Amino acid sequence: MANSPSGDSVLDRIVRVLSAFDPQHPDLTLSSLAARADLPTSTAYRLVDDMIGHDLLHRDPDGRIRVGVGMWELANRASDTMSMGRIARPHMLAVNAQIGQHVQLAIMRESDVLFLERVSAPQAGPNIAHVGGRLPTHASAAGLILLAQQPEHVRESYLRRDLARMTSSTITDPVVLRGVLDEARRTGFARLPGHMVASSTSCAVPIAGPTGEVVAALGAVVDTETAPPDQRIHEALAAGARAIRLALRRAQAAEAED
Amino acid sequence: MANSPSGDSVLDRIVRVLSAFDPQHPDLTLSSLAARADLPTSTAYRLVDDMIGHDLLHRDPDGRIRVGVGMWELANRASDTMSMGRIARPHMLAVNAQIGQHVQLAIMRESDVLFLERVSAPQAGPNIAHVGGRLPTHASAAGLILLAQQPEHVRESYLRRDLARMTSSTITDPVVLRGVLDEARRTGFARLPGHMVASSTSCAVPIAGPTGEVVAALGAVVDTETAPPDQRIHEALAAGARAIRLALRRAQAAEAED
Repeated sequence: MANSPSGDSVLDRIVRVLSAFDPQHPDLTLSSLAARADLPTSTAYRLVDDMIGHDLLHRDPDGRIRVGVGMWELANRASDTMSMGRIARPHMLAVNAQIGQHVQLAIMRESDVLFLERVSAPQAGPNIAHVGGRLPTHASAAGLILLAQQPEHVRESYLRRDLARMTSSTITDPVVLRGVLDEARRTGFARLPGHMVASSTSCAVPIAGPTGEVVAALGAVVDTETAPPDQRIHEALAAGARAIRLALRRAQAAEAED
Repeated sequence: MANSPSGDSVLDRIVRVLSAFDPQHPDLTLSSLAARADLPTSTAYRLVDDMIGHDLLHRDPDGRIRVGVGMWELANRASDTMSMGRIARPHMLAVNAQIGQHVQLAIMRESDVLFLERVSAPQAGPNIAHVGGRLPTHASAAGLILLAQQPEHVRESYLRRDLARMTSSTITDPVVLRGVLDEARRTGFARLPGHMVASSTSCAVPIAGPTGEVVAALGAVVDTETAPPDQRIHEALAAGARAIRLALRRAQAAEAED
């Protein structure tokens, strides 16, 4: 576990330490952190201390470790992604006011769908998408919309994977999924009833960036029993996606002016 | 510039590289990044490459470097701070609907005030507070509210600093500032007309956490000429702060249940 001269392994370890936290583990004891990061406790102890010194980690009064505010400050310098969520949010609120429950913004990351922003109605039903969390692409309407826009070799490589079954409705047959992807690309709308959570329907549309390429998906998760008609969900999401596209274009123009 | 055996200096460098970005510099060439991070270009080149490999940085097609989505993902594991902004947001929207312009959530970081969240009316006036940005504590109403709650030695140590003048109205006299802080602590309300931006008034109230201590400040920045009466701003902010306190308490109870 020596540090390599190039420092690569220190960076690896830092990333492993930070990756040990997740929504189910927002704080960890040092020993559980060391185990989850696959580090000897003594190495973890030293690294965690250094990271606390830079406020990348924080030690609670009871000794448990959390990700620090310093991480949040540094990441906020990632204007692109952070600001896409912030720019989209008012328009997501408008969509939420029309169709209720959950409205969310997602991008593709490696082969997962990553949720950047979420706006939920107070009495919204179950939804396992967390902001900053990833889900399997093929079980999420936002994921399918994004996958549908990928080059054919990326789509085909995804379809060759072992596709996880989230509920009894999740499509795991690549042939069926290929048809769903074609349909999503043709109509610009994906709808998956019960594929991620049995009682919910997930819908999504693509969001084009300032130059026309798809940069994100705008999705809704609604209770299948009480959901508005598909047509209304599609229209509300499409109007939201257009508004977000305009807002992104304005923000880019403003940044260029600065 | 050799790596120390403990790896400290690699961590230092990573933090310096990430700190080189700010709202005025969301992307940098490698050479400007190296200069701002105070690293030899060859060292910066290697470290930046490694960081790109972990997606902590991203290289645009034109070669400019940005903070990567991976940083955002890792920082989002900082459930505390990230989620405070998210939990507060709907209540900030409600305050914004009542008094217009900008409503913002801030905490103290070292001796600065750090803005965690901001909700702005579409036609809002000037406001130099960015989400993830810091401002001098004494020129911001949110900063003063937070400073007023600090132990006396922290307040006095702040007042001994060289206090930056942002506008001709900024109070830089520690004696006057001490009076303003006492008043803010007594009334739970701070109001600074033109101290940060000449035409704007900044107001703020404290937000108590689940256990009663002040965890953040809720502020408003309004156009001085068209601002609602102080009493109305104070009431709207105080109601917002109470709602945020309740929401934080509910979120903490929900986390404890998980």
